[in-house]
Amino acid sequence: MSSVKISNNMLERMPVYLNYLNALPKSITNISATKIAKALGLGEVSVRKDLAKVSDGGRCKLGYRCEDLINDIENFLDVKSKINAVIVGDGELIKILLNYQGAENSGLNILAGFDSSCTKQWNSGEKMIYPLEQLESFCTDQDINIGVIMSPIKEAQEVCDRLVRLGAKAIWNFTPVHLNVPEHIVVQSENITASIIKMRMQLKEKAEVS
Amino acid sequence: MSSVKISNNMLERMPVYLNYLNALPKSITNISATKIAKALGLGEVSVRKDLAKVSDGGRCKLGYRCEDLINDIENFLDVKSKINAVIVGDGELIKILLNYQGAENSGLNILAGFDSSCTKQWNSGEKMIYPLEQLESFCTDQDINIGVIMSPIKEAQEVCDRLVRLGAKAIWNFTPVHLNVPEHIVVQSENITASIIKMRMQLKEKAEVS
Repeated sequence: MSSVKISNNMLERMPVYLNYLNALPKSITNISATKIAKALGLGEVSVRKDLAKVSDGGRCKLGYRCEDLINDIENFLDVKSKINAVIVGDGELIKILLNYQGAENSGLNILAGFDSSCTKQWNSGEKMIYPLEQLESFCTDQDINIGVIMSPIKEAQEVCDRLVRLGAKAIWNFTPVHLNVPEHIVVQSENITASIIKMRMQLKEKAEVS
Repeated sequence: MSSVKISNNMLERMPVYLNYLNALPKSITNISATKIAKALGLGEVSVRKDLAKVSDGGRCKLGYRCEDLINDIENFLDVKSKINAVIVGDGELIKILLNYQGAENSGLNILAGFDSSCTKQWNSGEKMIYPLEQLESFCTDQDINIGVIMSPIKEAQEVCDRLVRLGAKAIWNFTPVHLNVPEHIVVQSENITASIIKMRMQLKEKAEVS
């Protein structure tokens, strides 16, 4: 990851640019910030600033070479250096994230899933899901950076403690539980319920205005 | 939803309080902001302020009656008034959100799922998944407030346009695509890739400090 500081908004736009650029037909070799802004419905000034921050390949009239721009964004985000993760949770959810191409593309190397409700290991597509009891024996010889928690609410804190003991430096929390962790651990929470409530709030505000 | 303005951070803590309160043993009838703050590892001042904003039931030494506090938070968030949603996407993801209890608890009434890869309707637990062709005929007689998009990247914008034409006022976007919508439409995006990149960035920052 580059040491240039970027805003949260810019950070959220980066995967959108990458996704757009990767989906362009091979015949398009060059692209301008203006064209990207138009296609994505974003402000031209923001797009221009964002791209200038991650790439110096922009040329007057020619724009960016698509291939170079993809490369520059990926380098800036450092997605090519892989970090290891394991997922703990319930079979179906684990399976989806285990096989989610976007994780791989963001440099997250998910090694395996662990399911408290299963008693035998099984192969979910390309990766294995093991009974939760095997978490410690599996992780001991691995360098685990991120622990993903999709467990039932009641198990979440205990699973978190186990992952931290196993050396996870970050916890990616898909449960609505507030996890207590040592100060040096990063927690990234996906709060589905808060998203629903935010949407409802915005809907209500728009209805009141109109 | 109350018309009191609250911050994003407070909004994200509300479901965490609800979840914590709902999980307390029935024998605990009263609880203080201090105890909640400690259990959730949050600052006492924030918790005190949050709760005072949604409830006037706090009593010196006694704290809040748990049942009343749950009620006050639910009323504040207006989760008891249901709004309708449909999900469009791919079978497995649809199935999980269709049967996600948290959605129901947040007042989101998901009516059905629509899958571009299925040719026959099927019953996924309590709710039906239909072929995508049936989206228009299903929605015409329903009052759809929210359209959830979990479609393959290439289909996302077209699905979004169809949902807006069918009257959706908000789009809940689980794809990494930037969706173009008319100005009066709310878009709430869940950007998994951005979450991964944010975590990596924080990990890197902590590693540089230590």
